[in-house]
Amino acid sequence: MREVAIIGVGMTRFGELWGSSLRNMFAEAALAAIDDAGVDHIDSMYVGSMSSGLFVHQEHIAALCADYLGVAGIPSTRVESACASGGISVRQAYIEVASGMSDIVLAGGVEKMNDGADATFALASAADQEYEAFNGITFPGLYAFMAHAHMKKYGTTLEQIADVAVKSHAHGAMNARAQFPFAVTREQVMNSTLVAEPLRLLHCSPVTDGAAAVIVAPVELAKQLGKPIVKIIGSGQATDGIALHNRTDPATIPAAGKAAQAAFAMAGLGPDDIDVAEVHDCFSIAELVVMEELGLVERGKSGEMVSAGETRLGGKIPINTSGGLKAKGHPVGASGVSQLIELTEQLRGEAGERQVEGARRALSQNMGGSGASSVVHILEAE
Amino acid sequence: MREVAIIGVGMTRFGELWGSSLRNMFAEAALAAIDDAGVDHIDSMYVGSMSSGLFVHQEHIAALCADYLGVAGIPSTRVESACASGGISVRQAYIEVASGMSDIVLAGGVEKMNDGADATFALASAADQEYEAFNGITFPGLYAFMAHAHMKKYGTTLEQIADVAVKSHAHGAMNARAQFPFAVTREQVMNSTLVAEPLRLLHCSPVTDGAAAVIVAPVELAKQLGKPIVKIIGSGQATDGIALHNRTDPATIPAAGKAAQAAFAMAGLGPDDIDVAEVHDCFSIAELVVMEELGLVERGKSGEMVSAGETRLGGKIPINTSGGLKAKGHPVGASGVSQLIELTEQLRGEAGERQVEGARRALSQNMGGSGASSVVHILEAE
Repeated sequence: MREVAIIGVGMTRFGELWGSSLRNMFAEAALAAIDDAGVDHIDSMYVGSMSSGLFVHQEHIAALCADYLGVAGIPSTRVESACASGGISVRQAYIEVASGMSDIVLAGGVEKMNDGADATFALASAADQEYEAFNGITFPGLYAFMAHAHMKKYGTTLEQIADVAVKSHAHGAMNARAQFPFAVTREQVMNSTLVAEPLRLLHCSPVTDGAAAVIVAPVELAKQLGKPIVKIIGSGQATDGIALHNRTDPATIPAAGKAAQAAFAMAGLGPDDIDVAEVHDCFSIAELVVMEELGLVERGKSGEMVSAGETRLGGKIPINTSGGLKAKGHPVGASGVSQLIELTEQLRGEAGERQVEGARRALSQNMGGSGASSVVHILEAE
Repeated sequence: MREVAIIGVGMTRFGELWGSSLRNMFAEAALAAIDDAGVDHIDSMYVGSMSSGLFVHQEHIAALCADYLGVAGIPSTRVESACASGGISVRQAYIEVASGMSDIVLAGGVEKMNDGADATFALASAADQEYEAFNGITFPGLYAFMAHAHMKKYGTTLEQIADVAVKSHAHGAMNARAQFPFAVTREQVMNSTLVAEPLRLLHCSPVTDGAAAVIVAPVELAKQLGKPIVKIIGSGQATDGIALHNRTDPATIPAAGKAAQAAFAMAGLGPDDIDVAEVHDCFSIAELVVMEELGLVERGKSGEMVSAGETRLGGKIPINTSGGLKAKGHPVGASGVSQLIELTEQLRGEAGERQVEGARRALSQNMGGSGASSVVHILEAE
């Protein structure tokens, strides 16, 4: 397999983009990525989207997006794995380039969630429809179960869970592309509207419109373009039972751990080698559990680590410097791609106020549903 | 890139399967394919499905299907390209195995269309939602436009278009897995209910439930298993504008032609080398246009070729020996995979009454929407 690099990145602002349709958002992000890469064509493309069908009654968006990007003719494939669709899009592009099948591949993600559809109903289709969604539970409820399990098993506190959101909003306040670019206090989080006990509004990622895209190519080609080289040195993907009630321990997300192990094994690295990470904080409790699955901290100690400031900018390992899904926003099919954009900019030293000094290796973790699918990538600056 | 073979195939019966859910159908087909291959595990899997969200309110089916197949843990990815989702699923598995990333990969497809959803509404999401579907046109209407264009430009007759369905039903009558395993006459086709002038009920593929799966592996591994070797020697994919009204000539489907050229180039073969083909006859007119795009016949002459019996079993190049989408049925996400099952059985010499004597090379063509995406595979028996 060939060595592969990310040579261009582009995204829309994340937010309620009432003036932009799915096709427009995708084209905006893709054109920005192509421009950033400085390439004059792409050989093929992938589009990650969770539920363009339920959100805007449009399937077949691989062809649609190629058409509106002005590249109709090339192979274009949509991938879907609920909220992990974006990360999977990049993984498929990685495999296609590594195989030698194609050279310059665009991996994008897009979701138009604010367009009149019932977002809660659409999102619930990522859970087990027959056993979970049909009986009325939605994702805040599922993650609330995880929060209770983690609190009971490890003594994790409401203050610690709130501190995840405080930290992410502090980062997001420096990100002009974020949906909610402002800081919040622990008190604000803990007094925000209750959504699913113990999770409150400021523990929950928002409903967001947005698109993101990266260009993936062989390292050899990246060198010819004279771009800063950001290599994909690890890619891991895993699944788990679709329904949370089948999980042996609801204080864990095994697919995240398995995907990380596969990515670390490919990269020949371990958790201590990572300088900065973007993880899937659809709810604040998710960030805590995922930190443990990735091996960034001992099981049960993630809350302490966050409250000690170790995951803030300047801390031991900054997490979600972009603001995370919480502050940056969570257009579900695009989120996984946007994680890799933040990390590419970090490794290029282009993250501005959010820059992690000396960052050389980065990890992204993206997942779907209550963790039934997860994908992890490890990047390295050359 | 490594040489790749199809080493196992399995599918459900196609039809109105009221007693089987999406997850059950998928598991049935996948288990049959694993059993046929004689392998004791799979490394990863793909699931093609057009619109599980609109049909049964279930996204995230890659994880769901892995779970219900009993293999939760392995990477599993859903791909969607409307009615080309199945063919794309096999293409992604092909790329993953060819790359060396994985050895034994399952490529499946599934669609549960009969479960209370409005199938016409869901299928229309494969067209341009904002310009076509929103204004009320559905797929029979779009293909009716193509039929008018072909009739006007080349003098193709209603009798010739009817003969496509007559031929496919003659084949399907010998296929126990077909939804409509019976013969029809030209008169029956031409007197069936008008759907979208000039297309009648017996020109249209039905609404179908079903699943299909193949196991893809390196040729080296296939040899160790002692299975008959059916190699994938060509894979091509292409897109076109999503809306039919933007096509320069509505009597053509350029993406089918482009995908075929790419597959022929990879295989180092041409149309004359093909012994048997499965093509995407969602409507009878589609089969005629696709025959021309594939180069199996001169432009404008496909109708004559069909009426002369050259695409029947025993003819110059038998097309849709399975019965095609018309008689076998069209569970949209599964159709592309089922094409490759028919061809694998043909190349193994296991097609029974439908066997094309001496078949060594086969071609499948699968497409989405009014032809905005298409994927072509070429198989060869060793």
